[in-house]
Amino acid sequence: MRGESAGESVVTIACCQIEPTIGEKEENVEKTLRFAGEAARSGADVILLPELANTGYMFDTREEAFRLAEVVPGGETTKKWEDFAQDQGVYLAAGIAEREAYQLYNSSVLIGPEGYIGSYRKLHLWNREKLFFEPGDLGLQVFHTPIGRMGMIICYDMWFPELIRIQALQGADLILNVTNWVAGSQEERDSRVTEAVCVAQAHLSSVFMAAADRIGIERGQPFLGRSMIVSPTGEVIAGPASFDNEEVITAECNLLEARAQKRKTRLNHAFHDRRIDVYDVLLGYDEEYRPLF
Amino acid sequence: MRGESAGESVVTIACCQIEPTIGEKEENVEKTLRFAGEAARSGADVILLPELANTGYMFDTREEAFRLAEVVPGGETTKKWEDFAQDQGVYLAAGIAEREAYQLYNSSVLIGPEGYIGSYRKLHLWNREKLFFEPGDLGLQVFHTPIGRMGMIICYDMWFPELIRIQALQGADLILNVTNWVAGSQEERDSRVTEAVCVAQAHLSSVFMAAADRIGIERGQPFLGRSMIVSPTGEVIAGPASFDNEEVITAECNLLEARAQKRKTRLNHAFHDRRIDVYDVLLGYDEEYRPLF
Repeated sequence: MRGESAGESVVTIACCQIEPTIGEKEENVEKTLRFAGEAARSGADVILLPELANTGYMFDTREEAFRLAEVVPGGETTKKWEDFAQDQGVYLAAGIAEREAYQLYNSSVLIGPEGYIGSYRKLHLWNREKLFFEPGDLGLQVFHTPIGRMGMIICYDMWFPELIRIQALQGADLILNVTNWVAGSQEERDSRVTEAVCVAQAHLSSVFMAAADRIGIERGQPFLGRSMIVSPTGEVIAGPASFDNEEVITAECNLLEARAQKRKTRLNHAFHDRRIDVYDVLLGYDEEYRPLF
Repeated sequence: MRGESAGESVVTIACCQIEPTIGEKEENVEKTLRFAGEAARSGADVILLPELANTGYMFDTREEAFRLAEVVPGGETTKKWEDFAQDQGVYLAAGIAEREAYQLYNSSVLIGPEGYIGSYRKLHLWNREKLFFEPGDLGLQVFHTPIGRMGMIICYDMWFPELIRIQALQGADLILNVTNWVAGSQEERDSRVTEAVCVAQAHLSSVFMAAADRIGIERGQPFLGRSMIVSPTGEVIAGPASFDNEEVITAECNLLEARAQKRKTRLNHAFHDRRIDVYDVLLGYDEEYRPLF
């Protein structure tokens, strides 16, 4: 439910926590449209789906991943999502296996009522993803839309503080995190730490963070669920969702808060206080640390 | 209680959560020695005290701060702490108002059984600190000691993900956070977010983080207390301490875990996975984001 008044740009964000089935693309896309449709009908303006929402996650072989991947934009999944976003007048962020010639990318597309806006190719690949996908080669981009500026990350990217920071510095009000958080042997601990990372990243850079995760156990791999939306002050304003149910969580967000909250006191601003004069080592220019690990 | 065996470097870390009294330097130093002594007697190897532990925090005037500040090393407080560390055979990290000619710094000293090791001048100053102190001009340094590598931060520094990241990249196993976390109007929320930031920073860069906070209300300003020690996997292994009691919290830490935990899977390493090819904007080289805030 969109609302505007002085200093406000209120949008409803929805995260669709679903369980795709590996390889069943038609069925998966059908499910994304069903859940996203439910979210749109209850007033969502921005709708997130999980990582690799149309294909599933646990590919057995490179060939299987290749066969399921699509050109972006132009592929059949993107087309269906474009039709949906246009029909419903919403913004949709969703994970997709992308193919360009013989290269595969773990990507996320952003689509609005006006059509395809852009995509992001995952920069930091987790574990076996490295066997199938190329590391992202499009860098980071913040997409300007009529309702605010949106950055995109995928799952393991969230463990790199650099990434959220960069998108915030580039002006993002909202980080769209399409994810497949894998659960390890200590699911409770993983969930606690994942929530802390979500909260901290949103708070440190004063941005909204919406994370749509998947659920289920796929080829032996369980996922964390617990999709959530966090405010720029670090409050969990929707979720964490369940561990094991398909569900939609929503929050009304005044996206302009992401900008206003960067001013901490009369004397402090989250970005103006940065000491870029001492941050060089972040780019690895200081070779001295290399032998340490 | 120090222990060593293959792949282990176990040390006991203690955070002394105390309440200094503004301006009462002699009494404050006395108190730091009393609490640190208690920690040492119960087996601590590394002992932390809060920010500005010898002077208190809420200076009224620049002149008051100037009068209380000392040369580092060489001032009377540092000397007493040096004697203590040598007598007890421990490492001590503590906050101190530092004076160099007419310039003041909000500093933290690291002292070991072998004497004064080094100091850190707070890089990111919070609120009214900007009226009294100069921003730190010594950059960031990781101190190598017989028991491990230690980095230092002070309070508001923790809200800059760059800082913990840099010290971890420079090889820190343990971040010594001497702090005076101020409580705002929403103390419960502040505590939750502060814990999440502590947990996330330790976890994201796979380092131990020990934070010794102060308590009490000084000239109208309440502090958060809730000192804590967090492991490289993001577990709170000591604390959070109380909001309002002077107390010592301790944890046994195998500092080498900070190095081992950076390897996440056979295919993933927290630092080797970094994409420094896309991190330029962190140094502000990309001028495009400037007008955004």
